[in-house]
Amino acid sequence: MEFKKQLKNYQNIINEELEKYLRKQECPEKQLNDAVEYSLMAGGKRLRPTLVIAVYKLFKTDIQTCMPYAVAIEMVHNFSLIHDDLPGIDNDDFRHGKPTNHKQFNEATAILAGDSLLNQAYITIAEDINREKDITNITKKAKIFEEFAKAVDRMIAGEHIDTECEGKQISDDCLEYIHKNKTAALLTLCVRMGAILAEVTEVELRKLTNYAEKIGLAFQIKDDILSVEGNEKILGKPVGNDARLKKVTYVSKYGLEGAKRILEEITEEAINELKEYGEKAEFLKELAIYIKNRNK
Amino acid sequence: MEFKKQLKNYQNIINEELEKYLRKQECPEKQLNDAVEYSLMAGGKRLRPTLVIAVYKLFKTDIQTCMPYAVAIEMVHNFSLIHDDLPGIDNDDFRHGKPTNHKQFNEATAILAGDSLLNQAYITIAEDINREKDITNITKKAKIFEEFAKAVDRMIAGEHIDTECEGKQISDDCLEYIHKNKTAALLTLCVRMGAILAEVTEVELRKLTNYAEKIGLAFQIKDDILSVEGNEKILGKPVGNDARLKKVTYVSKYGLEGAKRILEEITEEAINELKEYGEKAEFLKELAIYIKNRNK
Repeated sequence: MEFKKQLKNYQNIINEELEKYLRKQECPEKQLNDAVEYSLMAGGKRLRPTLVIAVYKLFKTDIQTCMPYAVAIEMVHNFSLIHDDLPGIDNDDFRHGKPTNHKQFNEATAILAGDSLLNQAYITIAEDINREKDITNITKKAKIFEEFAKAVDRMIAGEHIDTECEGKQISDDCLEYIHKNKTAALLTLCVRMGAILAEVTEVELRKLTNYAEKIGLAFQIKDDILSVEGNEKILGKPVGNDARLKKVTYVSKYGLEGAKRILEEITEEAINELKEYGEKAEFLKELAIYIKNRNK
Repeated sequence: MEFKKQLKNYQNIINEELEKYLRKQECPEKQLNDAVEYSLMAGGKRLRPTLVIAVYKLFKTDIQTCMPYAVAIEMVHNFSLIHDDLPGIDNDDFRHGKPTNHKQFNEATAILAGDSLLNQAYITIAEDINREKDITNITKKAKIFEEFAKAVDRMIAGEHIDTECEGKQISDDCLEYIHKNKTAALLTLCVRMGAILAEVTEVELRKLTNYAEKIGLAFQIKDDILSVEGNEKILGKPVGNDARLKKVTYVSKYGLEGAKRILEEITEEAINELKEYGEKAEFLKELAIYIKNRNK
């Protein structure tokens, strides 16, 4: 199947699955649930859950096994977007071309909707572990739970350093540390969850982790580039915010051309990690290229 | 041992345990870790972890078994305090007689420190589950994990309704719903975690849950009363905020005397649930009275 079609297919599967987790009933906290739904269903790229499923599918076919983890990671991703957009952090008014959560609802609701989404990710994982009867599967999923929580910890730390470093001169090491924690940790988790659920060998897990870390870095570099030369209408958010906030990025550090060159190299390295899977890994290879070439 | 001394003893044990979870090392996100430590070690009453341990001790002596859950619940409690104090929610400047987290650090740090604490609670639980080798214990703890996540979900929902209802006329049912979710859900969780870890029978679990729900409600009613007639110096925060924000409370609903009468009744009912444990439950009975009589 052609890449774009396959990606759309994954996005549809994920959106259908997410629908099952929405809380539609009438209840006193209805507005909170509406705010959660507003952000969760705002039409993100679904890159993280797609990674979970696509890696799992390198080895197995029963994708229902990995769906709770695909859902949980998308919940965490949206929690982080809602909180990052808050007036106290990035103070962004638009996301995916729509008002940000606190603009659409209010600040209190946005803070609590983010909290709720992070916590709902853990409800999702807990329920999946408790549905399990087989001890091997339970211990495997308990390990994933720990890896999940630790990757989220890194993401939060990365976001904090990113915020703290605004307008400051920082070292190359520090720039890499931010990107590794803020974005790559979660993308790596996605790939590793898919692989661990599919019961791959240690060697395979290592290579897939390398792939993940590289596309994670590529993703962040591309974000930095888009923040300079992206199209506001396509991005759905203002361009130039990073520069306005004097954020340290790959572009501010290496220049636009330098950042693009690094992006090319990293993407090639990522694809190289998949060569033993041949045709089967076509989608994941195309995904690395998609991350590099995307315009939003 | 006399109650106050025993409570102090529990507080010391909990503070020593929490110290082990603090992140003291030099690292780029040091300020975030400092902010977490600032709130976590700000001298709270440690009521929630004390409940976990005291209930566990009704049946067993090896309290190390329940310590990770005592720690996790205190992390969640402090996450909720940090976020509730934010300018976007209650906008409080003082907590335990010290500046609130966003006043001491900044708003971005406070949002992320809260996020991190909630998430660290799950790291703590995950690590404990994965240290376990015995399948019965693993499944027991996985059940607790799910109950934990669902109680936190209720707490967040309760906080949201509380925020949304400010200045509005609400029904008795709605007032009870707020209190049940915002405070009682977590206190009930504490008691149930201690009991489940101690492997009590279903009948015992039911009675202890009743005890928990009643002290949970008593706790909230007392909070409402203190917000009217408490001593600012002892409370460490301004009195009258509820009235200023036109919050619906037991006092605004039933008057000061009415609220106090309900508090007496509920406390007696809570104590009644423990009668079969006799002397052994002395601390938990005194704790119910302490919740009723506390001045902060």
